[in-house]
Amino acid sequence: MLKFFEYNWQVRDEWFDWCRQLTIEELLKNRQGGVGSILYTLFHIIDVEYSWIRGIQGKEDIKVEFADYNTPKKLKTLSDKFQNEITEFLKTDLDEVKEELVAVPWDKEKYIVDDILHHIIAHEIHHIGQLSIWSRELEFKPVSANLIGRKLH
Amino acid sequence: MLKFFEYNWQVRDEWFDWCRQLTIEELLKNRQGGVGSILYTLFHIIDVEYSWIRGIQGKEDIKVEFADYNTPKKLKTLSDKFQNEITEFLKTDLDEVKEELVAVPWDKEKYIVDDILHHIIAHEIHHIGQLSIWSRELEFKPVSANLIGRKLH
Repeated sequence: MLKFFEYNWQVRDEWFDWCRQLTIEELLKNRQGGVGSILYTLFHIIDVEYSWIRGIQGKEDIKVEFADYNTPKKLKTLSDKFQNEITEFLKTDLDEVKEELVAVPWDKEKYIVDDILHHIIAHEIHHIGQLSIWSRELEFKPVSANLIGRKLH
Repeated sequence: MLKFFEYNWQVRDEWFDWCRQLTIEELLKNRQGGVGSILYTLFHIIDVEYSWIRGIQGKEDIKVEFADYNTPKKLKTLSDKFQNEITEFLKTDLDEVKEELVAVPWDKEKYIVDDILHHIIAHEIHHIGQLSIWSRELEFKPVSANLIGRKLH
């Protein structure tokens, strides 16, 4: 699991670098498909990941507002902060809890920890795939999605 | 690992169902970003997965040609055939081999089995994310990418 989180975070950070090529208007422009703009997509990935991890931990959901993180710089700071917390959590023995059922306030179903972790990972990769299309539409080279040949931190 | 493969295959099969709404011309039309057309994207996912799995197994690469599988029906048959083979392979004890280095003819680098398995999984999810954008551009609802709340086979 950890390898996928590291991969996702590295790809995400490379997309933050990629964002520097675009104006804030382009980053905030609503686009077809996906969840909205490029920057909102990154916000959504970060928000969903953190919310589920807190859910697994039995912690109260913290509502973050996009309006407070609507620049790449602010959003990267949020991403780094959450990554630090999640890294600590991922160091715990997940095998012990992976079959435990989790209830969260935003979903009426309960899910096991293992499925939630899989979900978080797939969720980010899926949305990053969407960014790659928008990137080509904007005539910019997208960040590589390759997992092999990528030096993970 | 198996859970991600099952998830990917189920999502893939749902995209094959989704394809029925489109004409073959739309499915074969070259699109911006990604690897080409919708159908070629599905072919590419299938081809890449199978090639890497055969690479891990130390088997010779089998070259498949898109021209031989350029309808959803033909491609689904190929996908099913490969899935059966890969399922058998995934039943073996992967923990025993996961640190083994693998060399393949299409890449000058060697990679460990564990990284290749991660790569195959992320590769499919990424390209499926691309399909979801094209789907919205065509004004069709994309297949859900949720891993939770999805009844895996």
